[in-house]
This record gives sequence, C-alpha cells and structure tokens, in this order.
Amino acid sequence: MLVIAERINATRSSIARAMEERDAEFIAREARRQAEAGADFIDVNAGATPGSELESLKWAVGVVRQATDLPICLDSPGPEVLGAGLELIEGDPVMLNSATAEDGKMLPVMELAAEADALLVALAMDDAGLPGTAERRVEIAGRLVEAAESVGLPRDRLYIDPCIQPISTSADQAVACMDAVRRIMAEFEGVHTTCGLSNISFGLPNRKLLNRIYLACLMAHGLDGAILDPTEEGIMDVVVAGEALMGRDEFCMNYLQAMR
Amino acid sequence: MLVIAERINATRSSIARAMEERDAEFIAREARRQAEAGADFIDVNAGATPGSELESLKWAVGVVRQATDLPICLDSPGPEVLGAGLELIEGDPVMLNSATAEDGKMLPVMELAAEADALLVALAMDDAGLPGTAERRVEIAGRLVEAAESVGLPRDRLYIDPCIQPISTSADQAVACMDAVRRIMAEFEGVHTTCGLSNISFGLPNRKLLNRIYLACLMAHGLDGAILDPTEEGIMDVVVAGEALMGRDEFCMNYLQAMR
Repeated sequence: MLVIAERINATRSSIARAMEERDAEFIAREARRQAEAGADFIDVNAGATPGSELESLKWAVGVVRQATDLPICLDSPGPEVLGAGLELIEGDPVMLNSATAEDGKMLPVMELAAEADALLVALAMDDAGLPGTAERRVEIAGRLVEAAESVGLPRDRLYIDPCIQPISTSADQAVACMDAVRRIMAEFEGVHTTCGLSNISFGLPNRKLLNRIYLACLMAHGLDGAILDPTEEGIMDVVVAGEALMGRDEFCMNYLQAMR
Repeated sequence: MLVIAERINATRSSIARAMEERDAEFIAREARRQAEAGADFIDVNAGATPGSELESLKWAVGVVRQATDLPICLDSPGPEVLGAGLELIEGDPVMLNSATAEDGKMLPVMELAAEADALLVALAMDDAGLPGTAERRVEIAGRLVEAAESVGLPRDRLYIDPCIQPISTSADQAVACMDAVRRIMAEFEGVHTTCGLSNISFGLPNRKLLNRIYLACLMAHGLDGAILDPTEEGIMDVVVAGEALMGRDEFCMNYLQAMR
C-alpha cells in the first residue's frame, strides 16, 4: 500500500501562509510528522497562483528534501510546473500528481513521467468532466493505460484515481468507486489504483470515521495506494490491518510490529 | 444490516456461571446493554452440556424476553434443542442459529425454520468440514439455498455464514470469505449473508481493530448481517458508516443521527 502524504498542500491556509513567508521550519515539521506516521511519498502542492506557484514549489521541495529521505510527489495541474519541478529531483525516485484524460493534459504529463521514470497519478476524468459510474471510470482508465504505454510509460508506473465524490451529494458514489477500483485492477493487470480519500466525507460530521471505514472498503476491492493524511487519528492502523486482512503481510509481521 | 448480538453465550465463562447460578439480573443486563448498543436480535446460547442445555436455554430466553423487546436468536448445534426453544417463542419473530450442510443437520433445522417462519443462520460447511476457498463456500451455499427452498423456507429467510477462519493461521482466508460473500449475494439473489466476525482476529493482538476493519471490508462486498458484540468499542460506528457508504442510508439520515 503506497501512502502519499497530503498535508503539504497550499489549498490549506496554514501551508499557504508558510509558503508565502518561506517558513522552512513549518514545512519541514509537516514533512517529518508525515514521514514518522508512515508515509511513502510526500506530496508537495504549492497552490495555483500564476507566477508564484513554481517558485514556491521549488522552495518547498528543497525544504522537504532536507527534512526527510522520502521521495517527493510533485503536485500541480500544470505540466510545465511539473516539468520544471522534475529538474530539481533528477535521478531520484519521484511521483507526479497528476495527469487526466483531458485532451491537452494527458500526453504531456505522461511524456514527462516516462522520461523521468516517475510514478504517475492519473485521474479517471476527461473533457466531459468527473465520471458518475464505474463503467465510465473503467473506460477512461483504459484510455489512460493505452496512452501511457504509447509514450513508453509502463502501466505499473500508473496509479489510477477513480475520482471519489462525496456521499453527501451522491449516495451511490462510494459503491461506484469501489466497483471501479476492483474492475480497473482486474482488467488492466499490473496497473495500480489510488484515491483522494477524504473527498468521500465532504459535508458530513465525523469525517475521520468515514475516511477510515471507506479506506478499508477500497482496500477490500484491491486499492493499493492512497493520498491521505497519515497523521489523521487511526488511519495508518487501517492501512496496517487492511494489508494483513488482504493477505499482503506475511505472517502478519508488520501488523504485529505496529501493534507492539 | 442485521446485527445479531453475541454476548449471551455460555462459552464465555461469566455467562456460563450466570446460567448455572440462575443469575437473572446478570443475563438481563447483558441483554439490555446489547439492545441499547443497537442490536437487532439477541443470540442466546446455553452451551452444550448434555441434559442441562435445554433447561438453561429456556430459562435464559425467558429472562431476555422480559429484559428487552428484541427478538431472540436461538443458538444451539442441536435441532431438538432449537425445536424445544421454539415452543417458548410461538408467534413472535425468531431466528435460529444454525443449520449446516452436514447430512443429519441440514433438513431438520430447515424444516423447523420453515414451520416457525424463522430467519436461519446457515453455515457454509458440510461433512467434509470447514471450506478453504471461495468456490467451496459458494458451492455449499447453493446446496443450502436449494435445501431451504425444498422444505418451503424462502431464500430470503437465510443468512448464509461463510465460516470465517483466523488470518493468523491462514493468510488467505479473509479474502476468500469476502469473495464468497460477494459471489453468494450475486448468484443467489435475495439471500442474505452473515458471519461470526471475531473469528478473523483469533490469536492476534488488538483484535477489536481487526474486527472493525474486516467488518467494513465484508460490508463493501455486500454483507448484510453479522454476529458480533455491539458493545465492542467502535463496532457500531462501522455498521452506521458502512451503511451510509454502501448507499443504504437515505440522505445519510441514520449516520447524521448516530453522530449527534
């Protein structure tokens, strides 16, 4: 289970402020806390302010790389920002977040990932917008896999994200994403799946409970990656218990160690 | 989600003692606590001491029926004990726990259930013992459904139990039972599924965590009943959150009420 730690994201006001003020200790502390909680990658998103995004991203990536040994997940909707970010990281493992199946955003990001041998989060959405059904998600996933392979990015570098939508607005979306994950993992052997977990609970009370339970539900259908806050109460317990239940933890050794 | 509350079971030493001493207040308190926690049925198991089982069961059923308005789940491996227990309950809703597909135990219990219009827990095991794969579980479930219908017990009275085995002894059993639940619900439309949840965590630390996460995993595959301890920390939160996630809680009303 690949855990991509989501806290260093400028859509959060405390992070935006720390980036603006170049408060390196604040960003470094967020990186270390997430690393200690069990993250595999540290996502870095410097917001979408034109002009300042790239400078902030470069600064924050430098701070995070000094603070932890974990690889970075460069997070931007802009292919040119991702490309410039990659120059900082040359030679080290890296992840890009994200490509979509939208006309102008699919191939450029995939070509960057192929060249850098990066892992890539690919959202199952296209120019028609967010998908509403499992079928649409699987269909878009097929196009993402095909496009990746066409530019020399092997499918096992892809983490396809089914684009979770809140159950508070569409009651059938949790089931649709679970089904999509199971079918994508079965139909495109070798590909991975991930998700922006906390979207599921938007607008409801006790969001952490729903996030935990839904993560278990998705793991039960084969999910093997997640973008989440590893410092959130109980969430890494779900990862560890889920891996043991899915038979991916030999002799339950990780579970036993985590519970000690 | 049908919650069958498991605490009044003479395999637990405190319950065995209370039954032996005819400590009605102890049994009544267990019944009330489970009812308040959200149980739908109160399971009553008086152990398997030949001679004394039936007398203890009758006494305990009387105590539980005075203590709560919830229906009883009569729990015994013996068809004759179940039959005698049914006489106490005539006319009220009731559940029997359990039939198996073993030669001498399938039809007698199903006939009792048909006559009493009872719900019935039916274990997916036969004379060859506990099943090891999803395929075997589905195959036995097919025989259970067929036998039930042959004696006039509609399949929607059946709660088929895939017989969970601990992941500490077989790492693949959690996945096998999830797959079995999904396939049984799909192949025998109208039938229900249940499970003895806590078996999954036998022999491991922090059993409550594994129980909670595995319940979510099973609900994600369609499980709509469970034999569990509703007073166990956090377990009913999983039921309520799981129902909302599965789209079985209109406008998340039950979830919102439970979180208040």
